[in-house]
Amino acid sequence: MHFLMRADLETVKRDGFTIFTKGSEVRLPQVRCAEATEEIGPVDVVLIAVKATANRELERLLPPLLGAETALLTLQNGLGNEEFLSERWGAGRVMGALCFVCINRTAPGVIRHIDHGSISIGEFRRPASARARALVEAFRAVEVEAKAVDDLARERWRKLLWNIPFNGLSIAAGANVAEVLADRNLRALMAEGLDAARRLGHDIPDSFADWQLDRSETMGAYKPSSMIDHELGRPVEVEALWGEPLRQGLAAGAKMPRLEMLHGLIRHQTARGALRGG
Amino acid sequence: MHFLMRADLETVKRDGFTIFTKGSEVRLPQVRCAEATEEIGPVDVVLIAVKATANRELERLLPPLLGAETALLTLQNGLGNEEFLSERWGAGRVMGALCFVCINRTAPGVIRHIDHGSISIGEFRRPASARARALVEAFRAVEVEAKAVDDLARERWRKLLWNIPFNGLSIAAGANVAEVLADRNLRALMAEGLDAARRLGHDIPDSFADWQLDRSETMGAYKPSSMIDHELGRPVEVEALWGEPLRQGLAAGAKMPRLEMLHGLIRHQTARGALRGG
Repeated sequence: MHFLMRADLETVKRDGFTIFTKGSEVRLPQVRCAEATEEIGPVDVVLIAVKATANRELERLLPPLLGAETALLTLQNGLGNEEFLSERWGAGRVMGALCFVCINRTAPGVIRHIDHGSISIGEFRRPASARARALVEAFRAVEVEAKAVDDLARERWRKLLWNIPFNGLSIAAGANVAEVLADRNLRALMAEGLDAARRLGHDIPDSFADWQLDRSETMGAYKPSSMIDHELGRPVEVEALWGEPLRQGLAAGAKMPRLEMLHGLIRHQTARGALRGG
Repeated sequence: MHFLMRADLETVKRDGFTIFTKGSEVRLPQVRCAEATEEIGPVDVVLIAVKATANRELERLLPPLLGAETALLTLQNGLGNEEFLSERWGAGRVMGALCFVCINRTAPGVIRHIDHGSISIGEFRRPASARARALVEAFRAVEVEAKAVDDLARERWRKLLWNIPFNGLSIAAGANVAEVLADRNLRALMAEGLDAARRLGHDIPDSFADWQLDRSETMGAYKPSSMIDHELGRPVEVEALWGEPLRQGLAAGAKMPRLEMLHGLIRHQTARGALRGG
């Protein structure tokens, strides 16, 4: 396994990775890391973990990694990333994964795993394949909870039904999860997302919104990561999380006035954030 | 004419008012000002210019000013202020005015009049009366453009069709008028307001929205006053400008999902502003 590193390269070359995970410390003292993908060359699978806002850099980064059978597995948030990869390197290579994990990089080479930690892996517009199941086994072998999913797009929409209102309202209102839960727009936004997902052919029951809300009651003053990014002036994946779901929903005939407001306001606010932070 | 003053009392007692208006300076060296309404006693007309967020203070301030025929003229923004006065001191006393003026108090006793400057005066739920016309004449006598209006509620809604989206989007997005004009939610928000106004019986033509937008093209980077208030952590008239129009529109059967979002987000944001600003 090779790691393409930027700012952390020298530290990780010297010290490897340190992972604090649920009360224990895991050290990986020897890590193969590279400064450029040319140093790595063709691989079986590329795990893509850059922000969607940096996707254009993949046009330069990916080609040296591609052999005839190389799979591209995006671990990114929201919609549009599989499409981005598919348009450039062919749908056959593209896989996607959803990460349900609370994790922070707290210093160069140091990762703090706070809560949760499962990964759902699927194929782009196809049911789970042998390579998807092989990747699931590879994660399980190192004690990462993993499963294969047959309908990746549906799983993305299920996750978005939480991310759209919670990450969205928290950025737009400057509110934490507890405050968002008290906002009467929350359910209406979820209902817009659910209607869009169903029009796009994803079978998600009404009870799913209740389950999402129940699950969130315990989070209290937790701040979604994209709100922290916004507060620190870092790029926020505005189009992957709100713009692309809005466009797909509208194209499928859904009415999404609340999401339209949210997307417009977050676009304004993060444009200022980027100026402030960058 | 008596002025009830708070922070500016001592300065105005000593120096009076200085008004900079369209290139000339007007001085009023002798002003009758008071620290408490008890010092003033019953009057013919009370001009009410406190923020709607301070309306509860009127319960203490107004009674000493009331004679049998005292009229209450609110110059405040938005909806609900005439109702507030009417519930406490009787509908017969209540009049309202809309001020179309760009004005700042730049120092104690110093007023800078920047642009516009007309006032529309009407009765609460009645056509313009003799006393409304008398007040119009009184303003005209001191060179303030004024007119009497027969349908005060309609005039309030016409003004709100601008205030709701422009003041609202500027606060929620941190954007100026030029940026708000480029936001695709603007027209949809105006359309929600127009639909609500019509359901409430106000005859406002479609062309009114275009006229409002044309009129705004020249404002450029101007910031609505409530955005400045928000930036400085001062109280914002959230319920008069967004909450009450939303409640009235919903009660009349209008669908206002965008206004619901806007109201919810501004409520969160101004709650933080109030904390920040003290």
